[in-house]
Amino acid sequence: MKAVILAGGSGTRLWPVSRYGLPKQFIKLNGGKSLLAQTVERLAAVVPLRDIFVITNEDYRFHVQEDLRSVSLAMENNVILEPVGRNTAPAIALVMKYCLEKLKCPKDEVIFICPSDHIIEPVEKFAGYARQAEAAAKAGSIVTFGIKPSRPETGYGYIKKGGKARGGGVFKVEKFAEKPDLKTAGKYLKAGDYYWNSGMFSFSIATMLSEFKAYAPEISRKMGATLAKMTADFKNMPSISIDYAVMEKSKKAAVLPIDILWSDVGSWDSLPEVIKPDAEGNVKVGDVLALDTERTIVMGEKRLIAAIGLKDLIIVDTVDALLIARRGEAQRVKEVVDMLKERKRKEVVEHLTTYRPWGHFVVLEEGPRYKIKRIVLKPGQKVSHQLHYHRSEHWIIVKGTARVTLGGKTKLVHENESTYVPKSTEHRLENPGRVPLEMIEVQNGEYVGEDDIVRLNDIYGRKNK
Amino acid sequence: MKAVILAGGSGTRLWPVSRYGLPKQFIKLNGGKSLLAQTVERLAAVVPLRDIFVITNEDYRFHVQEDLRSVSLAMENNVILEPVGRNTAPAIALVMKYCLEKLKCPKDEVIFICPSDHIIEPVEKFAGYARQAEAAAKAGSIVTFGIKPSRPETGYGYIKKGGKARGGGVFKVEKFAEKPDLKTAGKYLKAGDYYWNSGMFSFSIATMLSEFKAYAPEISRKMGATLAKMTADFKNMPSISIDYAVMEKSKKAAVLPIDILWSDVGSWDSLPEVIKPDAEGNVKVGDVLALDTERTIVMGEKRLIAAIGLKDLIIVDTVDALLIARRGEAQRVKEVVDMLKERKRKEVVEHLTTYRPWGHFVVLEEGPRYKIKRIVLKPGQKVSHQLHYHRSEHWIIVKGTARVTLGGKTKLVHENESTYVPKSTEHRLENPGRVPLEMIEVQNGEYVGEDDIVRLNDIYGRKNK
Repeated sequence: MKAVILAGGSGTRLWPVSRYGLPKQFIKLNGGKSLLAQTVERLAAVVPLRDIFVITNEDYRFHVQEDLRSVSLAMENNVILEPVGRNTAPAIALVMKYCLEKLKCPKDEVIFICPSDHIIEPVEKFAGYARQAEAAAKAGSIVTFGIKPSRPETGYGYIKKGGKARGGGVFKVEKFAEKPDLKTAGKYLKAGDYYWNSGMFSFSIATMLSEFKAYAPEISRKMGATLAKMTADFKNMPSISIDYAVMEKSKKAAVLPIDILWSDVGSWDSLPEVIKPDAEGNVKVGDVLALDTERTIVMGEKRLIAAIGLKDLIIVDTVDALLIARRGEAQRVKEVVDMLKERKRKEVVEHLTTYRPWGHFVVLEEGPRYKIKRIVLKPGQKVSHQLHYHRSEHWIIVKGTARVTLGGKTKLVHENESTYVPKSTEHRLENPGRVPLEMIEVQNGEYVGEDDIVRLNDIYGRKNK
Repeated sequence: MKAVILAGGSGTRLWPVSRYGLPKQFIKLNGGKSLLAQTVERLAAVVPLRDIFVITNEDYRFHVQEDLRSVSLAMENNVILEPVGRNTAPAIALVMKYCLEKLKCPKDEVIFICPSDHIIEPVEKFAGYARQAEAAAKAGSIVTFGIKPSRPETGYGYIKKGGKARGGGVFKVEKFAEKPDLKTAGKYLKAGDYYWNSGMFSFSIATMLSEFKAYAPEISRKMGATLAKMTADFKNMPSISIDYAVMEKSKKAAVLPIDILWSDVGSWDSLPEVIKPDAEGNVKVGDVLALDTERTIVMGEKRLIAAIGLKDLIIVDTVDALLIARRGEAQRVKEVVDMLKERKRKEVVEHLTTYRPWGHFVVLEEGPRYKIKRIVLKPGQKVSHQLHYHRSEHWIIVKGTARVTLGGKTKLVHENESTYVPKSTEHRLENPGRVPLEMIEVQNGEYVGEDDIVRLNDIYGRKNK
């Protein structure tokens, strides 16, 4: 069995922590690891690490690789790249092609598809269900994971189970139901044969190929080409979800009822499902001082947060944006994000910390004609060979050693030393050492935008597009 | 008449904006000027600028001078310095001594005492009352300003008026009443002869001197010395308020009833008295996006603040601390401040921006072995001639021109140029130009605390104590 994690989404429902540049799967909610890294570790209880893959797009490739490395350095290249986003049906077609051509999988190989941004506990129980689903998938079912509902949730789609299906413990899917209103959700809960659609499913390649042929013939045809050709032509794929394209039509769709702690962390309102509230019903992360405060979620970062007399609030603080919402209204973060997007506000796109393949940088301050950054360059990495027409740069090494190439000459710059890069001068920065290089860059010039960059050479393939 | 503003208080009731290092009188609540500067401008409708003085202590001298300069450069030295804080009775004794000896005032000169951190409107009406009080003071009364109450306020002391007193429109003080409970406050409001004690009062020097002699003989005796001796001996003054020492005992205490918009801005709850709420009852300052939010106070600074579905909240955001409180509970900020003080948290003492006589600096980031500051040096100012044992400094000029003296040699450093100050090397920084000098300082070393400084020479008299 191969396990494939879908990590191309750009969800901002946990704004201001999640943003287009750092969507939900990459954020660290409940400890040191991202939701994606936690997903990888959970799957490691089911299959060996070498059989776990992540499908994502170019924008998120370096985030994915960083998270994979956080689990195991050997996993860095277990990435399947979608050239452009075309929803889940073409993505799964690409996954199958990748497995058949690149991994030389037999057609009866089972693929387990899993979202990258959910919380599931406990792991052992999950692994048991995953193996049960594998058996049913081998027997010819497309096995969806239906979570036994614990409340009349209106935020999830539901699966109604029918009679027994092929394979042990799985049932036919009688129907897929859209997100219900509260009354209908109550009926579903009472009925007992409705399950939350978790977005996880298992199938054998042979089964899914035949279903694509029957219900998604256009995608099926495009799979006839080689992996390289299919990838090159990916932009012409129809944009359609696997649910609409196949699941809701297939006679082979089955549901495995699952009784487990599961959350899609769909909004800040669901955080108490992920982090256990304290005796007052509060979830407090960060530097929080609370007086007489109940049922309140506080997600702090660096800043001190003092709360007095609060009830049923959600407070999410980041360096450049603060969200305060009444509990139960966290889904309206979408409205805020849409308004900010319309106003072209950077706070929905990027954090002040920007991640690059070579490391990251933080904008400490920006003013007219200057910008100050703290730059961290990972050991062995190189920033592209570049020049700027409108700014000069002062570099001060705070930690580690830099190899600086400036106008054709190379020198080493050590901790507490500095160097100066004049305008329109070719330069390259490398970290030849074994520890991260930390430096302060002070930019001066008539224009200090990120796009004043001419890339002459880039080991990450980012030469000017 | 001389007008004297009391500006020695260190109030933190508007934390996190007001802190020990920047108390309420210096903060800018409702526009570009501090409450102190607004007080000076208000008094300018009563007396010429040259007759307005501010009494404060050494810690706040530069803040006061900065605010005075913001009104008029000629006012910079209208400062009376208390060597140490000894409450209001000794402060007023010092003011009288200063007026008699330094300003050569006659004994029948009237002094108008005024807090530095209140809001009063409109100015013309205030000026009329101040002149009326002057006349009554000349006639021998100590005239307190009693504000006609508009609600049963429990946060203020009250003055009960009695029969007519000497001077037009003023009444004898029947009694001073402490802050009442809500029931008593209601009675006061209904009775109609109780007024809020505004802390403003007028008296002739002769009248107050005789009252000090009668009711505060120890202070009176110490006034026998010269101003210089009295100042040198100030630490031995009893610490007592003018209310306890004189007002509550004097037969000459009178009250001038005043019908005016007045607020002592005693907590964030009173902000709507200062800044008019919008149609939803919200007060919004800064970069605020509010959905479905009512009766909520949002004081933003730089950060974007998104509010969803909030009612009756107070949100005060600063660079390093955030306060969120239920409206009506803002007085509990005191509890928070006390707890933080106990934990020795810097967030109650200083802002990330630190003011110095020569300008200010902001700590942009601090880490192990390094600290990054943005420094602004005012034109014509000099940082003290100094050296550091544990850190070296890189200076990069972002705007303006610096005159740098380093190891005995002086050079000019221009915009986009940099210089390096090694450890244990004497250095001095000056702004010889006409515009503020802005520079980035990157400190490196085994210890980067502010107290690693040997001041060899300082034009502001701050040589190592």
